Amino acid sequence: MRALRFDGQRIQVQNVAEPEVCEDSVLVNVSLAGICNTDLEIVRGYMGFQGTLGHEFVGTVEQGPAELRGQRVVGEINFACRNCPVCHQGLQRHCPSRTVMGIHDADGAFAERVRVPVANLHPVPDAVADELAVFTEPLAAAFEILEQVHIEPGRECIVLGDGKLGLLVAQVLHHAGARVVCVGKHREKLAILAKRDIETLLLDDWRGEPVSLVVEATGTAEGFERAIAVLRPRGTLVLKSTVAEQLSVDLSPLVIDEIQVVGSRCGPFPPALRALELGAVDVRSLITDRVPLSRGTEALERANAPGALKVLIEV
Amino acid sequence: MRALRFDGQRIQVQNVAEPEVCEDSVLVNVSLAGICNTDLEIVRGYMGFQGTLGHEFVGTVEQGPAELRGQRVVGEINFACRNCPVCHQGLQRHCPSRTVMGIHDADGAFAERVRVPVANLHPVPDAVADELAVFTEPLAAAFEILEQVHIEPGRECIVLGDGKLGLLVAQVLHHAGARVVCVGKHREKLAILAKRDIETLLLDDWRGEPVSLVVEATGTAEGFERAIAVLRPRGTLVLKSTVAEQLSVDLSPLVIDEIQVVGSRCGPFPPALRALELGAVDVRSLITDRVPLSRGTEALERANAPGALKVLIEV
Repeated sequence: MRALRFDGQRIQVQNVAEPEVCEDSVLVNVSLAGICNTDLEIVRGYMGFQGTLGHEFVGTVEQGPAELRGQRVVGEINFACRNCPVCHQGLQRHCPSRTVMGIHDADGAFAERVRVPVANLHPVPDAVADELAVFTEPLAAAFEILEQVHIEPGRECIVLGDGKLGLLVAQVLHHAGARVVCVGKHREKLAILAKRDIETLLLDDWRGEPVSLVVEATGTAEGFERAIAVLRPRGTLVLKSTVAEQLSVDLSPLVIDEIQVVGSRCGPFPPALRALELGAVDVRSLITDRVPLSRGTEALERANAPGALKVLIEV
Repeated sequence: MRALRFDGQRIQVQNVAEPEVCEDSVLVNVSLAGICNTDLEIVRGYMGFQGTLGHEFVGTVEQGPAELRGQRVVGEINFACRNCPVCHQGLQRHCPSRTVMGIHDADGAFAERVRVPVANLHPVPDAVADELAVFTEPLAAAFEILEQVHIEPGRECIVLGDGKLGLLVAQVLHHAGARVVCVGKHREKLAILAKRDIETLLLDDWRGEPVSLVVEATGTAEGFERAIAVLRPRGTLVLKSTVAEQLSVDLSPLVIDEIQVVGSRCGPFPPALRALELGAVDVRSLITDRVPLSRGTEALERANAPGALKVLIEV
């Protein structure tokens, strides 16, 4: 089968052996996959990953238990042991011996077929088309904030960054009842939120009024410092991006203003699927390109281009 | 009157005018004052403060409302406006227009007399001797952690650092029911905790078993990184020290392990006074020197010396 592989230096579409599936996993025929910024970080060296890239996908179970065959599914990306103290606490996404699809020790979904543990599968409701379902994973990461931080109705909140993740986070928090302002640099990206009645501001127009919740979705040292600077005392900063570089930061404002920093990564799939089913979140407007798997290398280049949001790979 | 002053360059005992008191404040005759690491940071340039140093004190009200005169008191150090949205939320310690005794725009307590707002005073119970009461302010800073983080009975917790603050934090968390291990570099400092049945470890002997709560009380970049490295997924890191320098840190483990960082500064006086009254915390063993105000410069030098813990200034 064909797969988009990274060997530590080159990115190319190759013919590879079919994944082997064992008792607790299935083989999924990938229909559509999405490129995430983490994929772009990985080909810059993040995580030292080598293998088939990709962790956002929707597909159909081809091989596995009879009751699952033919089922349209999305899949959680952390493959946990389900047998250690961390897993027994319900923190499978943090299992210390986990592998992670397309990120750490497990082949990813930019391929004709991908192996996924049964426990990680979620059936996709009929009302959710493939091009929406493929957003389940990043949308779940946005929902993760609601698992970690109590968002009271009407809570004022700044989302810093108008990239893919920022746009999803802003919509999820807005839908949860927060009063969101998304601050970004791209008029056309912010316009997607304005259509959903979410307030937006160009960074240059932002006066930095104090606020008690900021979600940092730029993944830059400047973003971190801007966030700290506008937070009210005892405010909360949600860090949503992993960055390959070391940041040199002054931590004393955290202590003086008693700010809480909450690192936030992968999230729960069920509320994300429900939001897609309800149409509570506009993901379709985020699609800027659709590229066939055979031109996977080009797809990654397009995802890196200025103005790009979600680039989908058609398998 | 005499006061230990810092003019941005030199530290010296000088004769200065008596503080002026207005309607809402009193004049306190200082009996005993304590040197905090923040004082040592200030004379290295932290906060750009100039004036009379010191914010840990116990004394007797000399001038002010009749019902307060003669009362033995300690005083909170943040002088709030009590009239802004932050104050009205009950966050007077974070008032944006506050002055801070001996730290920011208000003269401190290394002096014969100090001005303190009436609202900041707490009477000292008779059972609490001056040499204990003078620890109320740093002990309150340790109690602040209990205001910010839910400590379940038996929660395992590492306190990193065996300085003054680390020793107080370890005792407060132990008394609150946590299972504390204090990790430090000084056998003789850790011995103070061992006497209270608190587990201690020399840094070299520490294997770094994963834990869900770490209090960083070393104020160093290494301390921050060690804390992050031993925290369990979704664990909490309490940052207790302000450091003058910028730290260059890798924030991605915060995101990957979804760690929460909680900045923590000044705390509530009433539980600190009660703990002193009950003898729940041993502060007396922390006193390594007592120096008269007339030799205040020497007192600061002693506080800087290796092995020093609390240096008290006798007024």
